[in-house]
Amino acid sequence: MPKQIEVTELILRDAHQSLLATRMALEDMAPACEDIDNAGYWSVECWGGATYDACIRFLNEDPWERLRTFRKLLPNSRLQMLLRGQNLLGYRHYEDTVVDRFVEKSAENGIDVFRVFDALNDIRNIRRAVRAVERAGKHAQGTICYTISPLHTITEFVDMAQELLDLGCNSICIKDMAALLKPQPAYDIVRGIKEACGEDTPIHVHVHATTGVTMVSLMKAIEAGADIVDTAISSLSLGPGHNPTESLVEMLEGTAYTTRLDKDRLRRIKDHFAMVRPKYSQFMSNITGVETEIFDSQIPGGMISNMESQLKQQNAGARLKEVLAEVPRVRADAGYPPLVTPSSQIVGTQAVFNVIMGRYKVLTGEFGDLILGYYGETIGKRSLEVTRLASKQFKKDLIQGRPADLLKPEWEQLRTAALALDGCNGSDEDVLTYAMFPQVAPKFFTHRAEGPKNVAATPAAKPAPAAAPQQTAHPPVKEPITYDVKLNGSTHRVTVSPA
Amino acid sequence: MPKQIEVTELILRDAHQSLLATRMALEDMAPACEDIDNAGYWSVECWGGATYDACIRFLNEDPWERLRTFRKLLPNSRLQMLLRGQNLLGYRHYEDTVVDRFVEKSAENGIDVFRVFDALNDIRNIRRAVRAVERAGKHAQGTICYTISPLHTITEFVDMAQELLDLGCNSICIKDMAALLKPQPAYDIVRGIKEACGEDTPIHVHVHATTGVTMVSLMKAIEAGADIVDTAISSLSLGPGHNPTESLVEMLEGTAYTTRLDKDRLRRIKDHFAMVRPKYSQFMSNITGVETEIFDSQIPGGMISNMESQLKQQNAGARLKEVLAEVPRVRADAGYPPLVTPSSQIVGTQAVFNVIMGRYKVLTGEFGDLILGYYGETIGKRSLEVTRLASKQFKKDLIQGRPADLLKPEWEQLRTAALALDGCNGSDEDVLTYAMFPQVAPKFFTHRAEGPKNVAATPAAKPAPAAAPQQTAHPPVKEPITYDVKLNGSTHRVTVSPA
Repeated sequence: MPKQIEVTELILRDAHQSLLATRMALEDMAPACEDIDNAGYWSVECWGGATYDACIRFLNEDPWERLRTFRKLLPNSRLQMLLRGQNLLGYRHYEDTVVDRFVEKSAENGIDVFRVFDALNDIRNIRRAVRAVERAGKHAQGTICYTISPLHTITEFVDMAQELLDLGCNSICIKDMAALLKPQPAYDIVRGIKEACGEDTPIHVHVHATTGVTMVSLMKAIEAGADIVDTAISSLSLGPGHNPTESLVEMLEGTAYTTRLDKDRLRRIKDHFAMVRPKYSQFMSNITGVETEIFDSQIPGGMISNMESQLKQQNAGARLKEVLAEVPRVRADAGYPPLVTPSSQIVGTQAVFNVIMGRYKVLTGEFGDLILGYYGETIGKRSLEVTRLASKQFKKDLIQGRPADLLKPEWEQLRTAALALDGCNGSDEDVLTYAMFPQVAPKFFTHRAEGPKNVAATPAAKPAPAAAPQQTAHPPVKEPITYDVKLNGSTHRVTVSPA
Repeated sequence: MPKQIEVTELILRDAHQSLLATRMALEDMAPACEDIDNAGYWSVECWGGATYDACIRFLNEDPWERLRTFRKLLPNSRLQMLLRGQNLLGYRHYEDTVVDRFVEKSAENGIDVFRVFDALNDIRNIRRAVRAVERAGKHAQGTICYTISPLHTITEFVDMAQELLDLGCNSICIKDMAALLKPQPAYDIVRGIKEACGEDTPIHVHVHATTGVTMVSLMKAIEAGADIVDTAISSLSLGPGHNPTESLVEMLEGTAYTTRLDKDRLRRIKDHFAMVRPKYSQFMSNITGVETEIFDSQIPGGMISNMESQLKQQNAGARLKEVLAEVPRVRADAGYPPLVTPSSQIVGTQAVFNVIMGRYKVLTGEFGDLILGYYGETIGKRSLEVTRLASKQFKKDLIQGRPADLLKPEWEQLRTAALALDGCNGSDEDVLTYAMFPQVAPKFFTHRAEGPKNVAATPAAKPAPAAAPQQTAHPPVKEPITYDVKLNGSTHRVTVSPA
């Protein structure tokens, strides 16, 4: 009997976050939910990450209402969310009781699996959320952000897995947000964790597709014992997105592994999103193929474009090469953080400053916080010299402790501020929306009653073509076309319409 | 020491044949040749397949001159071509001395490696070309077309490999033109050949990327002992094309395998074709993502679209499902040929006829030839009943022998006809051009002196977008298409051109 590999479908969260700038409206996902719910997935990632922000900022959708709708539409599925540890879904550290409340409310509204990570892999930023998930009786998945540096060894990752399990996590996720995980390390990390932490430790592998190697990494992870993998339905896959669900199913055929996914359901899900995708083409990522340069530069593609615009604003567009060479140095000085939001932007911007104004002549506030420990601990020692500079420039002390320990209870204060806002309905969910995005929430509350605003091109403006077209020089004709037809020596102009 | 895996670069032939309708002009390839020549490839596929046809039909380029230019630009490289056995680069069987002359001239003008295949895997259609390659002192690669059917077992493929080696082939190619080769069979076939034919049998694996699984198949083939793999530089890869060269290099890092490719050279090659590609966007395949449905339907995407157009021409667009169900039956009746040009079109068109007019009420001439043995032998027994029908309808006998045995010496006749053409330079190469494409050669000879016509958009006319274009709903029809049109009860073959 082949081993059954479980699959998490990413189409409702990370797939459109990675490929369509998180803009997909609930109404464009709902019609596929019945098939998704019955296709045989282990879980359906559908909430968290950037979707909360996008809901209130761009779509005038209440993210909690979206979650409750998914709960109704996917009654048989584990609903999964991505949670940035102590940052929750916002961009700062929250005080512990806010973390508790957020997790409690997420569970109450429908989340079953909480994938909890910290951008620096600082386990202290993960701990509180994991405790709260445990208390809610839900599945806490402890996450390792995969990155490459002289200090990130297989042993380090395996140790982190053990710490996450000691924390009470129900499973371990290896999260490769930059498509850096090659087949051999994928195998070695999974095997290492299984051997060190027990063969029955559930391991979940999340990879992006950008570099063109990670489908092979999934195969190797599976051979090493991985239990669950993340994929996205093919019509919204590849590029900066993920490997196609259907390809995973086919890849395993004849091997010692299998999935329990229903191919007919998958086809219908694919067809649905093939129809939806073109409506969002204005948000589509402009990477469609493969990019392997990140393996050498260690700099994610999005980070390079950020740095390029910054340089252009300073009339220094020609100095990108110097900046690219500066990034590894700044990263080393900062103790080799994984380059993922927000650390990638922080390191990249500081590298730009270093090149333009001289090395560490000016520090950004965020880089100061990073190097002084206000984001958490890094794997490597941070530069003593730069730490001193930062401490002096910002008149802040270096901290060793957990950043959130510096915060005072803030729930009541957040609640009072939220309830004072026009349109706030007084629920804890609304307080959390305000806590997460204090700049955006007021406008959202005011306009919420107007209902969701789908930002996709309307069918009238841009008719959705049918399912992804097949390969051919001559695709199926969908509209009347005029031809010159040569028949028995004479030419006729005829118009051909689809039958 | 890791085992060194050798790589064949496809960018100069199959990559643009698969993604840009074979339209790339020599002048758009030449600037990358120095880097290609020094990157460390085992060979560079740069000729044959559809390029010969495209050169004279669309580009006003002399294919032989193109080959001689490649020979000069790639002095350190093995130049490789794809040869359709007894069909050479044309669409019929040629008499043996024409085959001999073609191979001799190709070797003389620069080809080092001849990949020889037959669409039906009939080794008798491969034999003569392989002998000629041997005589020219070049590398003869015997090719197995990979396909799936109840009769195509690992054993069958291994046996065919042994027959090709017995023929004198220097290496074996497993050619997966439809991206059907999954990881496990990739492993099993390579291992099977190595065990049956000797571990030192060089095995070369060619896969397309369409289904999203074949990068894993390459990994498994390598683990099973494959020596050489085919890839295309990333900026012209994926979709109906091939897996990216750079991803292959990265995929192997840390494993028991490595390549000797120079990553800096690869980056420059990539950058060059990233710049060239958008100029050909009007020819670009409209598949950008992954298609896995072929695994179930066994029907290549291009074949489905052909059948759709045929049905629409007959006002029977709604009957595609019946046709899709009919294809496997027709294929079985025809003895399970691989579905690849031309057998895919022949089987597909007959399935359309069966649905519209009743099963085998009307046979196409091509299907008649296929079932009567005029394309060669198939793996399975052909339907006796349909064979009888064909024999009766076309007043032709079933043949058991090698189709080319029926042909009389034709070189002198071809030569006389070619030399009579305006602009023919009297060389054997020109005679071969005429032999291959008697309809196209006259016009080409007349206009050859005007020099190559690059069909790419000029940068001024169409500024190159940053990245590859997204999926288009209805790419315009670019070339004349031939349809069978039923008019007043009788069927006419008509050619339509875009107005």
